Amino acid sequence: MVRDDQKRKRVLVLGGGFGGIYTAMALEKSLRRDEAVEIVLINRENYMVFQPMLAEIISGSIEILHTIAPIRRLCPTVTLHVREVESIDLENKVVSTSPGFRPHAHTIEYDYLILALGNVLNFSIMPGLEEHALPFKNLGDAIFLRNHIIHALEEADIEEDQDLRRRLLTFVVAGGGFSGVEVAAELNDFVHRVVRHYRHISPDELKVILLHAGPRILPELPEDLGIYAQNILRRRGVDIRLNTRLTAATADEAVLDVEERVPTKTLVSTVPGAPHPLVAALPCQKERGRIVVNGFLEVVGYPDVWALGDCAFIIDQKTGEPCPPTAQYAVREGRCIAHNILAAMRGMPKKPFSFAVLGLLGALGHRSAVAQILGMKFSGVFAWLLWRAIYLMKLPGLDRKVRVAADWLLDILLPPDIVQLRTSRTQSLAREHFEPGEIVFRQGDLGDRLYIIEKGEVEVVKEEEGGVEKVVAKLGPGQCFGEMALVSDAPRMATVRPLTGLNVLTIQRGAFRTLFDHLPSMRETFEEVIERRQAG
Amino acid sequence: MVRDDQKRKRVLVLGGGFGGIYTAMALEKSLRRDEAVEIVLINRENYMVFQPMLAEIISGSIEILHTIAPIRRLCPTVTLHVREVESIDLENKVVSTSPGFRPHAHTIEYDYLILALGNVLNFSIMPGLEEHALPFKNLGDAIFLRNHIIHALEEADIEEDQDLRRRLLTFVVAGGGFSGVEVAAELNDFVHRVVRHYRHISPDELKVILLHAGPRILPELPEDLGIYAQNILRRRGVDIRLNTRLTAATADEAVLDVEERVPTKTLVSTVPGAPHPLVAALPCQKERGRIVVNGFLEVVGYPDVWALGDCAFIIDQKTGEPCPPTAQYAVREGRCIAHNILAAMRGMPKKPFSFAVLGLLGALGHRSAVAQILGMKFSGVFAWLLWRAIYLMKLPGLDRKVRVAADWLLDILLPPDIVQLRTSRTQSLAREHFEPGEIVFRQGDLGDRLYIIEKGEVEVVKEEEGGVEKVVAKLGPGQCFGEMALVSDAPRMATVRPLTGLNVLTIQRGAFRTLFDHLPSMRETFEEVIERRQAG
Repeated sequence: MVRDDQKRKRVLVLGGGFGGIYTAMALEKSLRRDEAVEIVLINRENYMVFQPMLAEIISGSIEILHTIAPIRRLCPTVTLHVREVESIDLENKVVSTSPGFRPHAHTIEYDYLILALGNVLNFSIMPGLEEHALPFKNLGDAIFLRNHIIHALEEADIEEDQDLRRRLLTFVVAGGGFSGVEVAAELNDFVHRVVRHYRHISPDELKVILLHAGPRILPELPEDLGIYAQNILRRRGVDIRLNTRLTAATADEAVLDVEERVPTKTLVSTVPGAPHPLVAALPCQKERGRIVVNGFLEVVGYPDVWALGDCAFIIDQKTGEPCPPTAQYAVREGRCIAHNILAAMRGMPKKPFSFAVLGLLGALGHRSAVAQILGMKFSGVFAWLLWRAIYLMKLPGLDRKVRVAADWLLDILLPPDIVQLRTSRTQSLAREHFEPGEIVFRQGDLGDRLYIIEKGEVEVVKEEEGGVEKVVAKLGPGQCFGEMALVSDAPRMATVRPLTGLNVLTIQRGAFRTLFDHLPSMRETFEEVIERRQAG
Repeated sequence: MVRDDQKRKRVLVLGGGFGGIYTAMALEKSLRRDEAVEIVLINRENYMVFQPMLAEIISGSIEILHTIAPIRRLCPTVTLHVREVESIDLENKVVSTSPGFRPHAHTIEYDYLILALGNVLNFSIMPGLEEHALPFKNLGDAIFLRNHIIHALEEADIEEDQDLRRRLLTFVVAGGGFSGVEVAAELNDFVHRVVRHYRHISPDELKVILLHAGPRILPELPEDLGIYAQNILRRRGVDIRLNTRLTAATADEAVLDVEERVPTKTLVSTVPGAPHPLVAALPCQKERGRIVVNGFLEVVGYPDVWALGDCAFIIDQKTGEPCPPTAQYAVREGRCIAHNILAAMRGMPKKPFSFAVLGLLGALGHRSAVAQILGMKFSGVFAWLLWRAIYLMKLPGLDRKVRVAADWLLDILLPPDIVQLRTSRTQSLAREHFEPGEIVFRQGDLGDRLYIIEKGEVEVVKEEEGGVEKVVAKLGPGQCFGEMALVSDAPRMATVRPLTGLNVLTIQRGAFRTLFDHLPSMRETFEEVIERRQAG
């Protein structure tokens, strides 16, 4: 991008979370008309997610789009690029973004850079998590989870296999911090509120399990509030498992470190975040993966670069303590950076960052919450009203405030919604993980995908007359199975079981057919494989 | 599925549109407690779409989920299967559905069958439609279109290429019936209302074009109302092209029969429906693809099978005229079938179907509409108020009525929403269509996908120093191109242009890499191809 005016300074903000947006808003507000400054913000979506209300999407007490606010309305004079950041070049002061409709690289030069990229969920820490656990971080995750829950209820209502029913009606949430507790509470409320519409499901069949590695949930809060929350949730039927960790996940089970496997089709993980890959790639100094800044929030060694929020390692200048990665801090950090950038431009003194937390709030669903505000502790209905009042106040934009208030009002008056909005199409290529003792597929099943082994081993077993089993093959990495059912319409001719932990790549029937029909090399390979199998 | 009670009769309804739902609702209401009848309904979603309000999702004046109603709430005693119907066996009185979580075929026996499957959009009638036109029939289509429009505005706001800007800011709707007119009107209103948030787009750049094959739009209405609607839309800036048909579509253009190509990234098609594939496969008598029924709406030749709505060919028993495929008729047909099934069970006389249409309503966006009710004609604000009042009344369920009324109220008070909810992930395998004169990709572009030719021919051209072009290859069906940029990170090394109409299958970079890494046969093939290309 060519700079149209050489004298105009460009401030480039990367990231549209609390940190990035509040920096841009504060800058926009403080700029004088005679200051030739352009603010550019890059974010992958054209909205900011109001995280504290995200869990309410599960139960539908807030409309899907009301927990998010359009960035163009929050910062009307900012130039917004709805793109992914692809690389950051601190030496040449250039950032490049993903292509839009045209497949062209797009680069943006800057005078001042603000890094507010947040962090990402870390799903690589245990087998099967990436393939089978549901994340809970952004709007798409919340919508997906809600629909998945409704889908599970729909299926359970007409399912006669008791084992599968149990899996469908068991919901597991891993992580007992604020996020995990709010998800478990909302999920539990929602399934119990709507179950009466599913005539073949009894409320006793519903099971919500919250896994937490520590001795009590909500470690961020004082002990008595944590215990209070625990008691409330247990009374509502949530099965809280303390001192328990998830160790692996499959399509059918959550595997725990206490030698237990919980059969479930719904596993939500709120595992701790990992550094954003772009931050990891930066050459600057880092502490536990976060960018080290000085007291003015400037990145050490790069005078025109600033960092804040979850991606920065910030020391409070009064207490000397590291600042927690919360929205409360990100908002204040943003204002501090806006002040300091303007000070740098105007040649005025900069301000060191310091902030004392005002309070902590956690919603427990169904009209109760826990809160610690200015040292005082609250719980129950009063804390819940406080929660709603405070977050409604903090929600950016008047139109959003009105819309959410209307949602809450209607939610009290009207029954909850159970329409399932399918947002994801089946991926034609996917990865799956299996644990030993599970079954990949059974003889007689319909064949809907082909499997290619990435890691691990399987045995192929034929059931013969009289229930006798015969192992017909063992397969390992690079080999594939399940192709027979894809080229003919016959059901699976054998059962396949993993002998070890197993990672597979799967290709859906439709995609397989397309590739088979159009790629001669692929057709030849599989025709050979099939011939060999049939001969063997 | 085993029948638990042999004496219990099962009524099976296929389809959850107006026809299916109103039949089930009427049956549920009229059944006596002592009648052992089970009603089962199969639909691919757990909600019914209220079609007349679908277009309002585009502008966001109704919340996404409020135009749909949960089937479980409309018919609480009906057993709902959220599945696809896979086959209908009229001889053995069995229907089979798609598998759910378990890959097992699922069959349901019936005593009485009601076919309310509707019709499907017919996108196979011209080249490129299936690949590049946006349908407008169900909820997913409406959400997709809304997000696509916002995406186009986001991109246009930061795009400097004038040609691409024009394509992004031109929106084409094909079909001047009720559906097409409502979409064009809402779309036009929406882009003009939100454009002020896009500071680099001038309202003059926005172009909405409505194509219609006949001499005036809304042929369903009397001439003066059609002309009135035409004038209103033209005054608001909609470019209405009469006597004009779409003949082909590509990713960049709408090709018209008047030897014109309209550059656009947004083409909505509301083409006439084709018979549902399941209906097409039935052995019963059909007229223009629709199932022929007798005066009682029984399928001719199959005494316990009934059909209604868009999939049935119904003659009004008073006028002798065929009934139009509208919601108004479907609702009355449903009530008639419910009456007749109960009459059959109870041994009472059946009722022949007859209904006189009450009126026709078409919304034109921005507080105007046209209507013909009980022979009287209305237009303007009054017709618009009438439209809202009548449809609010007709919306099934009290909670929906309240929610939609609240939406309309807030829509008057608050600015329209511009958040973009991305619901579709990029398909790893897709089809694309190109017309001669277009360009598949340009030398120097980033390589994001591989192309395999299904039909047609291309030329591969290298630009050399001094702007000289050299044709280096011609490729035809079964051959592939674009693989070089996928195995290395280099940009496209040549330009590819279609020599004829071209259909290609594309594989996205990520999917290609996965296949390349895990399928040895694929790797070998492409390594060979690349070696040959580099040598050549």
